[in-house]
Amino acid sequence: MLKRFQSLANPNEVYKDVRKIAIIDVGSNSFRLIVITYVPGYHFQVTDEVREAVRLVQGLGQTGFMRAAPMDHAVETMQLYAGFCKASEITDIAAVATSAVREAKNSAPFLERIKRTSGIDVRVLSGEEEAYYGYLAAENSTTLRDGYVLDLGGETISLTLGAVRTTEEWLSEAPASKSAVTRLRKHIRDQLEALPWFKVAPKTRLIAQGGSLRNTAHIVQKMNDYPLDELHGYLLKSSDLRHAIEEMEPLSVEKRQQIPGMKFDRADIALAGAIVIDECMRYADYERLTVCSQGLREGVFYERFLAENKPPIFEDVRRASVMNVAHLYHYQASHVEHVEHLALSLFDQLKDDELCGNNERALLWAACMLHDIGMTIDYNDHHRHGYYLILNSGLPGYSHRELALIALVVRYHRKGMPESGNLGSILEKDDDKRLLKMTALVRLAEQLDRSRDGSVKDVRLSISGDLAQMEIVSPVDVSVAIWSAQRHVDIFQAAFGKTLEFIPVTV
Amino acid sequence: MLKRFQSLANPNEVYKDVRKIAIIDVGSNSFRLIVITYVPGYHFQVTDEVREAVRLVQGLGQTGFMRAAPMDHAVETMQLYAGFCKASEITDIAAVATSAVREAKNSAPFLERIKRTSGIDVRVLSGEEEAYYGYLAAENSTTLRDGYVLDLGGETISLTLGAVRTTEEWLSEAPASKSAVTRLRKHIRDQLEALPWFKVAPKTRLIAQGGSLRNTAHIVQKMNDYPLDELHGYLLKSSDLRHAIEEMEPLSVEKRQQIPGMKFDRADIALAGAIVIDECMRYADYERLTVCSQGLREGVFYERFLAENKPPIFEDVRRASVMNVAHLYHYQASHVEHVEHLALSLFDQLKDDELCGNNERALLWAACMLHDIGMTIDYNDHHRHGYYLILNSGLPGYSHRELALIALVVRYHRKGMPESGNLGSILEKDDDKRLLKMTALVRLAEQLDRSRDGSVKDVRLSISGDLAQMEIVSPVDVSVAIWSAQRHVDIFQAAFGKTLEFIPVTV
Repeated sequence: MLKRFQSLANPNEVYKDVRKIAIIDVGSNSFRLIVITYVPGYHFQVTDEVREAVRLVQGLGQTGFMRAAPMDHAVETMQLYAGFCKASEITDIAAVATSAVREAKNSAPFLERIKRTSGIDVRVLSGEEEAYYGYLAAENSTTLRDGYVLDLGGETISLTLGAVRTTEEWLSEAPASKSAVTRLRKHIRDQLEALPWFKVAPKTRLIAQGGSLRNTAHIVQKMNDYPLDELHGYLLKSSDLRHAIEEMEPLSVEKRQQIPGMKFDRADIALAGAIVIDECMRYADYERLTVCSQGLREGVFYERFLAENKPPIFEDVRRASVMNVAHLYHYQASHVEHVEHLALSLFDQLKDDELCGNNERALLWAACMLHDIGMTIDYNDHHRHGYYLILNSGLPGYSHRELALIALVVRYHRKGMPESGNLGSILEKDDDKRLLKMTALVRLAEQLDRSRDGSVKDVRLSISGDLAQMEIVSPVDVSVAIWSAQRHVDIFQAAFGKTLEFIPVTV
Repeated sequence: MLKRFQSLANPNEVYKDVRKIAIIDVGSNSFRLIVITYVPGYHFQVTDEVREAVRLVQGLGQTGFMRAAPMDHAVETMQLYAGFCKASEITDIAAVATSAVREAKNSAPFLERIKRTSGIDVRVLSGEEEAYYGYLAAENSTTLRDGYVLDLGGETISLTLGAVRTTEEWLSEAPASKSAVTRLRKHIRDQLEALPWFKVAPKTRLIAQGGSLRNTAHIVQKMNDYPLDELHGYLLKSSDLRHAIEEMEPLSVEKRQQIPGMKFDRADIALAGAIVIDECMRYADYERLTVCSQGLREGVFYERFLAENKPPIFEDVRRASVMNVAHLYHYQASHVEHVEHLALSLFDQLKDDELCGNNERALLWAACMLHDIGMTIDYNDHHRHGYYLILNSGLPGYSHRELALIALVVRYHRKGMPESGNLGSILEKDDDKRLLKMTALVRLAEQLDRSRDGSVKDVRLSISGDLAQMEIVSPVDVSVAIWSAQRHVDIFQAAFGKTLEFIPVTV
């Protein structure tokens, strides 16, 4: 049924239909149901999540059978999920199972039992399908085009290195003895020898997924007092990883549970998971990897959401991320696109500035599109709310440094001199200057369109030495726009070292 | 045209029509256009604002004429507003003018000029109408039922004490000399003698509105490092007010502009405004007043939004506030109302607890309704996002202490021991205990409905000494619900001093 749609946060938009899908990941370590609410071709967001630590893979290694207790727990969980979907009026349910169910000898009766008690059909993925969905998620949420996607959530195609099984078989005691760790590391290296192609190459990146990886990355973030509460896009350095491993090795499980960032029910398997990651990085010679918090579940979704693309991949992941966030919040397309037009026009006319290259242009574009989203929370301080929303919604495809810069430009798009605050530690050399330049351009563009009617058609910059003259081209009187922009010549001066004057030009 | 409506942030809701109105306040000191987007009977929010410091009243006192320069600025501003409305596709425009236009001798040609150049009809309000709208705003955004509404934005019915005029006539020089201040204070007291009824009475409150008042309150908040960035509902103490006045008196205008919290274009008139407030409080013997950041503009809106109520006042302002915020964000009515049902049922069964009275019940109710709104930003950490949204959206009708408690319950509704953090300074004695109790109940209720299907129909508490047994009443198997709730017995123990056990009861 087509439902005409208009978001309260986006009163200018009318949508055709809003849909919900529940994707259930019948995993080896945990079951997870996510609900994604989406408008085809326009927007999507995870709107609910129910996770259960079921541990189907427990004991599987020795016997080849899934054990009774985790199976009972699995059946109860699927019934809970069925009730959840019914109460939430979700009829579109995609349940997929991975390596534990795939390999177990007693899968068939188990799946029948689930079908009988919860009504849910579970599709068992082959190793290749599982890897495909993980890859789809990585391609659609990062800018990986050449490199490797390492999924440590369950198992890879040819290796058996999941954290639960590895702990059971190689590191069942905690604290971990040096000899046990040595044996484990050798085991991992032996396994990796089967993948001679897995080696760092110029311009390639290593992306990693999975609960184990996320848990490890979270621990490292806490260790380093990382200023962002965002795992996706985080650059994990091998040196930090080794530091975390050294922390965990001498501790009992109870003490590991106390480690900041440790997920309570992963405390026993976290060390093995971290060592697997470490050995993979050493083997392929990568000193860093990018955390991808999306995986199988999102991959299943993208296959559906992007069904019209062959393959189902965003043409431009970064653009899709920005528009996705913009479409969730207050987004007045005409004003925002006009600010974009003016700011980018000015940027392009400042091309001699060495900090105004293509990368900066992309960030400036994102800041323009998102600068007013904070109005959804409150008009007052909407610049601060926008900063919060950008940092907490995240922008897949952007590095954390880029995310920080975009959020800071939005934070300062109205007034004040930009300061990076606690985000300074993730910025790079000269980013304070980049921030200043981008902020100056967004602010001027905003002031020139404060009537929100696009009456300032164009801006033409003429620069001579320390003087910059900006022609304000419009068919109507622009004295109010100029008077507003005039109050912000100081930031232009600070950013570009030039005195700014405005010249109205009527066309 | 009826548009079927569904908010992306609220996929379960379908609305009939979303409307926008632009309300233009042709004020004595500043012009302000606000856009309110609303669904009749359901939700409203200010979604845009354009303020111009026009100062129509400048020089009016001496001649009775509005002067050419501010009138030119006014005309340009109204043209800007007309262009804005056109670009935003807003056809519903309500423009009202107050004391400067009302009193000036040259109003008629001025209004004709505005009509001619911008197309906007401006309705000039009588003093009574102006006061009425201010009162309507106060009644609909606070719990004032007996007391006074003091509007310092323009003028009251019978007094001429607006900040601009008062500065011009009594405090035109800065720093302010002691004699000038003394003469001003006497002038104000003389004016107030016309209002012998304006005197504090038991159980009455003083609510104050207006730009001058907000500016003063903001300065005081900054002086005191106030932990909330919210003016509405702020309790301004006369002692703090006097401190702010002492700060300003010896300063030049430029130095006053530096005072944290000072609005740039109010720096010259702020002292007079603060002294007027001070003298009013002294006169009526109020040691504190409540800041109401809503005024004339919102009053004009309420008259329309609540047209079906006679008079146009919310039956329950606090309930309306909570539902208004809930309807803006992710709001799954069935789950939220079920958590409300379970949490309040438990609360009612704990009535012997001296910190579980009616006031606390109302706060618990609000926290239940709002506990999941943070999911709009991101499922992860939605408890933290909910905390941010509540504090920054605000809840008219709730005191700041109550707002903080509600936000903190939401912050901790998933895990962890509640801590008031920097909000501690606005809490009262035993609020840490109240917080703990409310958090415990919301958390248990949330866990009991984590399947989100309302399958736990009721909870019945039996208490004997240090033991509390909770019967979980349901027609279906509730082992997962009990298993989830079991993990949070510690907070119940901490809050109520009782060991908690769960007993499933099938009905």
